[in-house]
Amino acid sequence: MKDFFKVQDIADVFGYFKQFARVGTESVALADACGRVAAEEICADEDLPGFPRSVVDGFAVRGASTFGASEANPAYLTIGGRVSMGGVPDFSIGPGQAAKIPTGGMLPAGADSVVMVEHSSSLDDATIEIYRSVAPGQNCIRVGEDYQKGAVLVSHGQSMRPQHAGVLAAFGRCEVCVYRRPKVGIISTGDEIVAVTRSPAPGQIRDINAYTIAGMVSEAGGIPVGYGIVSDDYNALYDHCRRALEECDTVLISGGSSVGNRDFTVEVIAGFENARILVHGISISPGKPTILAAIEEQAFWGLPGHVVSAMIVFDRVVKPFIRYLGGGPAVAGSEIGITARLRRNVSSAQGRLDYVRVRLLRENNTVWAEPLLGKSALIHTMVQADGLIEIDKNTEGLDEGDTVQVILF
Amino acid sequence: MKDFFKVQDIADVFGYFKQFARVGTESVALADACGRVAAEEICADEDLPGFPRSVVDGFAVRGASTFGASEANPAYLTIGGRVSMGGVPDFSIGPGQAAKIPTGGMLPAGADSVVMVEHSSSLDDATIEIYRSVAPGQNCIRVGEDYQKGAVLVSHGQSMRPQHAGVLAAFGRCEVCVYRRPKVGIISTGDEIVAVTRSPAPGQIRDINAYTIAGMVSEAGGIPVGYGIVSDDYNALYDHCRRALEECDTVLISGGSSVGNRDFTVEVIAGFENARILVHGISISPGKPTILAAIEEQAFWGLPGHVVSAMIVFDRVVKPFIRYLGGGPAVAGSEIGITARLRRNVSSAQGRLDYVRVRLLRENNTVWAEPLLGKSALIHTMVQADGLIEIDKNTEGLDEGDTVQVILF
Repeated sequence: MKDFFKVQDIADVFGYFKQFARVGTESVALADACGRVAAEEICADEDLPGFPRSVVDGFAVRGASTFGASEANPAYLTIGGRVSMGGVPDFSIGPGQAAKIPTGGMLPAGADSVVMVEHSSSLDDATIEIYRSVAPGQNCIRVGEDYQKGAVLVSHGQSMRPQHAGVLAAFGRCEVCVYRRPKVGIISTGDEIVAVTRSPAPGQIRDINAYTIAGMVSEAGGIPVGYGIVSDDYNALYDHCRRALEECDTVLISGGSSVGNRDFTVEVIAGFENARILVHGISISPGKPTILAAIEEQAFWGLPGHVVSAMIVFDRVVKPFIRYLGGGPAVAGSEIGITARLRRNVSSAQGRLDYVRVRLLRENNTVWAEPLLGKSALIHTMVQADGLIEIDKNTEGLDEGDTVQVILF
Repeated sequence: MKDFFKVQDIADVFGYFKQFARVGTESVALADACGRVAAEEICADEDLPGFPRSVVDGFAVRGASTFGASEANPAYLTIGGRVSMGGVPDFSIGPGQAAKIPTGGMLPAGADSVVMVEHSSSLDDATIEIYRSVAPGQNCIRVGEDYQKGAVLVSHGQSMRPQHAGVLAAFGRCEVCVYRRPKVGIISTGDEIVAVTRSPAPGQIRDINAYTIAGMVSEAGGIPVGYGIVSDDYNALYDHCRRALEECDTVLISGGSSVGNRDFTVEVIAGFENARILVHGISISPGKPTILAAIEEQAFWGLPGHVVSAMIVFDRVVKPFIRYLGGGPAVAGSEIGITARLRRNVSSAQGRLDYVRVRLLRENNTVWAEPLLGKSALIHTMVQADGLIEIDKNTEGLDEGDTVQVILF
């Protein structure tokens, strides 16, 4: 297990995702469906709407009865009835007739369109003048115009938004089958790390990564499960990892950026039967010393210890993995960013993908991306940053004024 | 109360926000702070880090001892000690000396920089060769380099991200004072609306808005509280509104797009003592028939009944209000959108702000915004849409190929 591992491209890392099975499913109430990933395809079992509805207040007519109508030359129609809200009209409309109808009301038989009340006036109880012609279908929605029976309402793998909840409500779906939220075990390592509740002695620091990572796991749709801080002790670390793997869908270990610590994580992985290290180093900066292993059928991640590196690797690599585990797509890295102009030159090493933290500034009508170039152990740079720009491995750097795409986080 | 109300610009509507008091505060555990809005300013009570730390594995030195070192002409240094992780070095480093140090280790007294292990080699137990010079401060972080004592860690009103949780962890803050999540009462009205669990008769439809709005309230940081469907009955509606106002921070009533229904909502508002209608119509499309009233000190919103109109008004007007109530800024509408090119011409009426639903498509390296121009009663257009473009009131329309900013939802 102590072989030399070749640094891999980020796209290769995404290629391993499919080796891991997605989490199981559960049923949730419709009110809890937003933000969850559908684990079923849901189709329309009827037409929506199931009856022709007016979308304005006015008069239901046959469009043909209004053709040629204008202010100068109105059409005169006879009132043939009045549609009540939520009811079924017990009359029909013929040529030259109109029925008063509220927004949302059902069109009576014979009517194919609605004249807005603003384009009419009453002459007497039985007659109205119409000042504008309407085409058949105008100002109303026909049966099935929103969804026809059999249409896909929600696709398998769809991350549901409020509008999906609305569509499912329209079809009376009170429960939805969704993927469980992946449980993500988080272990911090390092002899210098102390719990947030403790006062660190000189040489010690509090556990920052457990909190940043837990927050990012939640944002990615997972459930963070904390396993505390483990000192650099093989047996203690092995036991924590074993328990976390039993209780969670995947496990992240953070800390261990130092060469000694990295070996240590690799040693613990090697201690499990059927463990394979898939990735030991990604050609990105920051975040190169990242480990992905398969232990039995579960993914086990070793993240860099520096807070900036850990957060960037999480955002670019682990977040897409958690989304994949939770029913999302197996491909990653295609989000559309914010277009901005670079505030100053940024250099970059060829042969690796560089992620540069940036702050967005708006001046007049231009959005600027200002690089924040602090060391990757400094969390204040992440607090100031609005997102990242990516400098691909064949580019040596970017110039002030260049157009860049900012990935928000 | 039945006076004629003038349609107002959206910026005027934002101007009323400050009339309403923000919600109260509560204390939450640090692990629950992400996504919450800070109700206190939190400052550093010490320097971070509190001791000089190495950010690489290598040798702590005085930079001056390495000046001029190169592959051809290495510097020879004497090992003066070894720094253990989490410990305080009990020795100091002088000119010509070096101490082995791991990433995160504390620099010994006398050292001001660290040579990376890759740029050194051991000659024997007591001596190393150095191939690169380091400047003082290089490869380490000095006391207070991340945050100096007194620096602001989290501002009052800051919506907290994982990095804020990390910073607070670094300073041992286990609890944070945040704004409560605003409770938002949701009432659906209309004689044609039936509960999602019921089979609508012809002429009836299920309650879509309650679900879309509840989902959007949650996304805006509020807690949706459902009050069900109320038929068009003054006393029933008044009672529901009174109860919702007592139990919630603000109340939304949806439905009532028809002229009759709108009057009805206004009548119910008028039934409360100390009720003032502030907005009765906004010069936006869709979403014009929106009502904002103050009942005692609480905001009461009347949203259009059509699902698309209700969702767009919510996104553009009510969401910023809920964020304001929950501690966010009182100004709204300044988010940075996705830059895209318009897929085809869109016309727009002058004198009002038009919101056009768009779907984003990526072709080669161009992001296109394709307008979705369905009627505002059709929810499938919101399911297909990725966001909105805004056409301002002095513009008659946009042409195919124009650059637009897409506000995602």
